[in-house]
Parts: sequence; structure tokens; C-alpha cells
Amino acid sequence: MTPQSEDFSAWYNELVVKAELVDRGPVRGTMVIRPYGYRLWELLQSDLDRRIKETGHQNAYFPLLIPQSYLEREAEHVEGFAPELAVVTHAGGKQLEEPLIIRPTSETVIGEYMAKWISSHRDLPMLLNQWANAVRWELRPRLLLRTTEFLWQEGHTAHIGEADAMRETMLALTEIYAPTARELAAMPVIEGEKTPGERFAGAVSTFTIEAMMRDGRALQAGTSHYMGTNFARSFGIQYTGEDGQLSHAYTTSWGMSTRLIGGVIMTHGDDKGLVLPPRLAPYQVVVVPITRGAATAEVTAAAAALAGRLAAAGIRAHTDDRPQLSPGFKFNEWELRGVPIRLELGPRDLSAGTAVMARRLGGAKESIALDDAPARLAGELAAFQDFLLERATAFRDSRTVTTDEWGEFTEAVATGWAVALHCGIQECEDEIKAATGATARCIPLTGEPASGPCIRCGRPSAYGKRVIFGRAY
Amino acid sequence: MTPQSEDFSAWYNELVVKAELVDRGPVRGTMVIRPYGYRLWELLQSDLDRRIKETGHQNAYFPLLIPQSYLEREAEHVEGFAPELAVVTHAGGKQLEEPLIIRPTSETVIGEYMAKWISSHRDLPMLLNQWANAVRWELRPRLLLRTTEFLWQEGHTAHIGEADAMRETMLALTEIYAPTARELAAMPVIEGEKTPGERFAGAVSTFTIEAMMRDGRALQAGTSHYMGTNFARSFGIQYTGEDGQLSHAYTTSWGMSTRLIGGVIMTHGDDKGLVLPPRLAPYQVVVVPITRGAATAEVTAAAAALAGRLAAAGIRAHTDDRPQLSPGFKFNEWELRGVPIRLELGPRDLSAGTAVMARRLGGAKESIALDDAPARLAGELAAFQDFLLERATAFRDSRTVTTDEWGEFTEAVATGWAVALHCGIQECEDEIKAATGATARCIPLTGEPASGPCIRCGRPSAYGKRVIFGRAY
Repeated sequence: MTPQSEDFSAWYNELVVKAELVDRGPVRGTMVIRPYGYRLWELLQSDLDRRIKETGHQNAYFPLLIPQSYLEREAEHVEGFAPELAVVTHAGGKQLEEPLIIRPTSETVIGEYMAKWISSHRDLPMLLNQWANAVRWELRPRLLLRTTEFLWQEGHTAHIGEADAMRETMLALTEIYAPTARELAAMPVIEGEKTPGERFAGAVSTFTIEAMMRDGRALQAGTSHYMGTNFARSFGIQYTGEDGQLSHAYTTSWGMSTRLIGGVIMTHGDDKGLVLPPRLAPYQVVVVPITRGAATAEVTAAAAALAGRLAAAGIRAHTDDRPQLSPGFKFNEWELRGVPIRLELGPRDLSAGTAVMARRLGGAKESIALDDAPARLAGELAAFQDFLLERATAFRDSRTVTTDEWGEFTEAVATGWAVALHCGIQECEDEIKAATGATARCIPLTGEPASGPCIRCGRPSAYGKRVIFGRAY
Repeated sequence: MTPQSEDFSAWYNELVVKAELVDRGPVRGTMVIRPYGYRLWELLQSDLDRRIKETGHQNAYFPLLIPQSYLEREAEHVEGFAPELAVVTHAGGKQLEEPLIIRPTSETVIGEYMAKWISSHRDLPMLLNQWANAVRWELRPRLLLRTTEFLWQEGHTAHIGEADAMRETMLALTEIYAPTARELAAMPVIEGEKTPGERFAGAVSTFTIEAMMRDGRALQAGTSHYMGTNFARSFGIQYTGEDGQLSHAYTTSWGMSTRLIGGVIMTHGDDKGLVLPPRLAPYQVVVVPITRGAATAEVTAAAAALAGRLAAAGIRAHTDDRPQLSPGFKFNEWELRGVPIRLELGPRDLSAGTAVMARRLGGAKESIALDDAPARLAGELAAFQDFLLERATAFRDSRTVTTDEWGEFTEAVATGWAVALHCGIQECEDEIKAATGATARCIPLTGEPASGPCIRCGRPSAYGKRVIFGRAY
């Protein structure tokens, strides 16, 4: 496999296929999610779904096919998405009277139904979410990160007033997405607001969680949009207040997708392959029986029993008893596939009541007592999860430079992020991109008040804070 | 609402919308699944997914868009599905070189990848499943039962040899689908084989679970297909055996969809609305505080506390504390929405430490002790679940007539099912359909050996068993 240090992009493209996470689909830009990748998605999904439900949202499902006219009702929205649409023109053997769009996102169709279902202030807030596929015809597709079809959840909510809608927008960002990224994916994301040029098409403001990959590039890992009354006006989402007055609702939307799996790979992976955070690892522990000849049956049975005890303790354990493969081959394969901990069990270990533990990120192998294995491994896995987040945080911090100097800025964005003052003018952002490849990733929520001359043009800074710049996926 | 007895079809169409299970989609034949309906789907899905995983299958995800040429590789398959396809001709602002089909089912694209992933006998069996949406342009769409887009799971497996593939086909039918239908949906399904004319396009044999609705019509509630080597030959799914010989794999596929929700409604519902089996009911118990004036806060808090205790005992309980609605309105609404048990809690009940229990299918209201409520209701819900299955079984049996007499046959299929001998000739099946509206639903697996003259034409019977005939959805 191409080493990460040599060609990050080639490393990634080879790894996701070799590790059997995904395969290229038959249509350009599409992907097949293989069982190992899909299990990772399911683990993410079940945790995210729990958080979504615990914060009062209900799942629903809206149609895949949207009449073209719906998209055209919100002018900025259709302008933003038009180049990426896939269009159904024929169905049931006939040409359709109106072409249908495969949903690139569902604000329009959900807006139409919110308008139908909402009439009174008592119907608000309406807090919906859907798990679905979506299609955007991508110019530069990349497995998991930017695929023509992707899987995601999209939250769509309607509220009385700006304050409640903005509270929801921030809730999705800071109470659903950021904790999911940190706690499950061990990705130390920064929560912030997008600059106007990076907003979702049709939003008043867009918020993001931004993560740094191991090549220093940024990945937008989840977004939350405050729509004001833009979509409510286009679709007629109105309610009668307690005072009998008719008002437009304020809406939000927010999404997290299979892209996050790509983020996990590029945050933790190394030259040996994937490094999976235990909470997202399909197998947290793989037990490899080391055996030949007479002892085979006994050792293999003991390995399965050990995996069974681990499973009973809530650890996702797998026994690799494939007879045709050597232990060394298996070690490499499970390292490639990012399993956090490997246990080797041979006849001598078995008589001694021990197993050999090897951690995915190396260090000396250790002999551990079989009796103690479930408790010991639970601790090791928790420590590994914490370590990955700490390591990624330290890496990000080591590649982030706060600067007021253009030369330093260009150096910083060549290998990571620059935190700088910016004038807020789109043309100036465009110039920075043309000169360095970097874009404004976000204005961090936690940024200290700051002002002064723009890093690029010297005009007075906007936003009252510094902006994070970086090259991005 | 139109009474069930007056116009079953109108009753159904009105009920699914009024109960807020679904709404009509913007495109003909599509539907929106509202939170109440989607929760029901999630409850079904999580149980079905568990059964699928426990029997060794792994979830994966294959692309929505399939190159037209893939479908054309299996001649019968494309012939069967051609009239129902939705076609993407434009994407990313351009006309596509090859039109893309929105998956009506995924045998073709999964066959392509099985061919890529399978090379050795060690790769078999390959046991895959996916949860996905699919699109078939339906001529006579009907909410939940036959929608242009539907949600489902589709299992796809590949095996060494006919015996293993046939074992899998039967496993999906008898160990996954039939128990799901009986235990969750309380639908007493009959497992059987389809006659040749009712087979899946491209299958060697198709098996089904057939349920009887309350208007006597049949609903195919899940199907399992044995493909032989038909798809393996079209897509090149081959493996090298232990002996070094190259052979085609044998494949199967099986699916269960959102249609089952329609089946639940038509199996148990009545003139008052839905009747939901507890195991699929989004709310198993609704607590309605009966209160006015001074006691309101206290009674509402006690109702919420009661619902909380039920929830802690694993019962899906909901408190309806909407202040603007009368208790009577709420009673009707929760009856319409099929909640198995309602608890009414007023100030007097509260002082007495009791609540009034009303079952969805009537009978006298009963006073129950609050202390005892969780255990008591768990028992009531289990009994209600059992009762629904028994009632549906008795209903089905009362409308099923075993007959060798054409007059009796036509009477039987006017209100239910006829179990009769048939010659197995397609033209004769077509004549029966033309004369009575009934089709061959299945040849029951458990049917006793039987032979004699065909019920319609008098030619010798086929299959060695009787066939169930009925009008179907």
C-alpha cells in the first residue's frame, strides 16, 4: 500500500477498498458500502439516532423523488443545487409531464408537508429527522467523502420565532454533532459558523463542525443551518398564534453523513492501515489462535470461548479461525482493518491461562490473564478511545497557527490551519483560495473577541473574531 | 370515517391518513411516512434486523442507481420489471451516456459485486442484506400496500449448490418472515410456494407468506426466491471448489417491506380505526388525565409519573396532557390511532390509588391499582397480542373453504379463500382470474398430499397438493 506520508490521497483511496469498507460503484462517483463499512455506519447511526430522539425529534420518511417545481420555489436553493441534480425524465415506460429530481436534500419536500401539517402555534415546534440516501452529481467524487449517492440523516424543524429556531440550530451542532464526533469518532472538532460564501444554499446562517485530517486538511463533518423564514415563505409554513395572528415559522435543517467514516479514516489511520476508535470498531478485539497440528481443535475452541466471554461483557470480539491463513497474515490483515486490540492465543498461553495482547498502535506486546480478560480489555479499549482523541487534538494543535502575517499564513495552510483576521469580503476570500488553496473553514464559536487588519487585504476585520482557514476536503 | 363494512377500500384509504401513519406524496403513487407510521416501521425493522443478523447475515449497502445494461443481462428479470422502471437520463446538467435505473430491486447490482468478491469456495456462503428504498412505477398505487417508492430489506445470498441455497430460501421464509409476521404483526400467515405464473422475474421458484385481510382478500406479506444459477450465470458469480473446479454459485433473494404495515391495518382494524398489536404499537398505553380547575397540575403530574413508571418497566407509554382537548376527544383519537390500552386518571382515581383501564377492543372498563400497574399492563398487553393473532386466525379459518366444486369455489373467493385442486396450467389460472378475480396465492408448505380433477377445467391436478386461491392486494 502507498505510505500515507508519500501520497495521502493514494493511501486513502487504496486503504478504504483494501480494508473492505467500500468498493467503487458501477456509476461514476457511487460506492458500495461493504459489511465492514456498513457496520461502522450502523454503530454511528444508532448512537446518533439515540441523541436525536433524546432531544425530542421524531423520525419520518419523505419521498426520494421531488417535483422539479418544488426546488425552484426557493431561488438561492435551486441555484446552489442545480448543477448537481440527477433527473428522472421517464417512468413506467412514458416520458413524465414534469421531470422529477432525486433528492439532493429534502428542505423543499419537507417544507411542503410542514405547511400542510402546521396550522396552530400548538403544532410547533415540529422536530423531524429522516435517515435516507441523497444524490448529488459530484465533479470530483471521492469514496465516502464526496459520493454521488450518500447516506445521511437530515433533521428538519420548524419553530415559533427566531430565538427558538436558533436554539435548535445550535443544539444540533453542539449537543448532537460535536459530542458524536468527539465521543464516538475521537475527532476533536471545532464548532463554528461558516462565512457567507460557504453557507448552505437558502440558509441565513450555517454552522459546522470542522475536523483536521492527518494531512492537515480540514473536513466539514456535520452542518446545521438556520433558515430564518426563507423556506417558510417559499412553502407557506404558517401558524396562527395565541393572539390569532398568522405568522411564518422559522426553520432549521442539519445533516451528518457517511462522509464521517472517511473522516475517521483520515483522522486516525497510518501506514499500516485503519486505526478505528473502539466505539466505532465493528470488531474491538480479534482473537487469533496460534496453532498447528494436534493442539488445533483445543486452542481454536479456547479462542472461541474467550471471544464469547468478551462478547458477554459487551465487547465486540471476533475469532479469526480461518484454517488456511497463517497467524502473520491475520495480524497484518487486522492491523490493516484497524482493530484496536489483538489477542494471540497459543497452546503455551492456554496452559499458562494467559493470552498475548497487541495494541493496534504498537508498544510492547503484553501477556494478560484469561480470567481477567474482559475487565482488562474494557479498560484498554476505553484508554485507546481516549488516547486517539488526545493524539488527534495534539496533532491539530501542532498544525494550527494563529497569525497576523501573510507569509506565516501561507506556510500554516500548506500543512494545517491558520487562525487569522479577515475582512469578510467574498472577493478577498476568493483571492486567498486562489493564492493558497485555503478557504475559510469557520468562525469558531469559542473564539476570543479580536479585530484588526485583514490578513490578506488589510481592510478592517469582520466577525469580531478570528477565522480558521485551511485547505479542505 | 367510512365504516369498514360499507367500503373497505375507502375505510383503509381514509384511516391511514387520519391516523397520521402516512400522507400522499407529491408524485403520484408516493407516500410520506409520518412519525407515527415510521415508528411502527422502526419497531418492525429492529426485530427483523435482529433475526436477520442472528441467522448469520451481514448488512451492506448497494447503489440506488443501476446501469440499464445490468438489468438487461437477465432476460426474464428485465422483462418482468421493464414496465415499472424509473429512468434517470440527465445528471450534473448533462444527458447521461447510459440511462440509469432507480433500483426496483437489487439482484443485478449485487450480482455484479458478488462476482467480484467471490472466487473461492471459502467465500461462500455469502449472506448479505440491505435496508433500502426501491422504486417501481405502479399502475394502481395504494398507500403502504403498493407505492411507487417503498422501504424494505432485501436479502441476497450466494451458496455452494442447490441444497444450501434452497435451505437459505426456506430459512428466510420460515425462520425470519413467518415468525416476524405472526409474533410481531399478529398475522397468521400461510407459508407456501407460488405457482409458476406468480414467480419473481428471474427466479426458479418463489415462496411467500400469505395473509388474509378483513375483507377476505389475500396480501403477500413477504417473499423468498430461489434463483438457481440464473443470476450467477448472467453476472458470472463463480467459485473454485476444493477440487479446483470452477462452478456457478446458487443464489437467493428475499424481501419484506413497508407493505406489511398496510397488512397490519387491514388484518386488525375496525370501524373505530386502527387496532395495533402491542409489539408494533408506537404507544402501547396512553394515559389521559381527566381533570379541570384546581386539581389539574396534580393529576397531570401523577399521569406523567405513571407513564414514567410504565416506561421504566419497558412499556411504551405516553401521557396525553394537551390542555385544549377534552378527554372524550382524546379517547376517540387514541382509539382511531389503535393504542391497545388507555388509562384514565382523575382526581378521585388518584386519591383511591387507582386508574381506569379501557382496552381498545372494548369490554367493560376496569379499575386497576396504580401500584400494580406495570405488572398488570405487561400482562394485559401480552394477552392482547395473543388475542389478535387468535382472532385473525379464527377469521381466516372461517373464510377458508376447501372445495372440489366450482360453485362453492366462486362463493368462497368472493369473501375469502378457496383451497382447491388445480391443473397447474397458466391459461386455466388466467381463466379463473377472469371469472372470479381470484389468483393462486400459494401451494401451502404444510398441505396434505392431494390429487384429482382441476377445480376449473377438470384436467388432472398438479403440485400433489391443493392450492389456495383468493382475490389479492
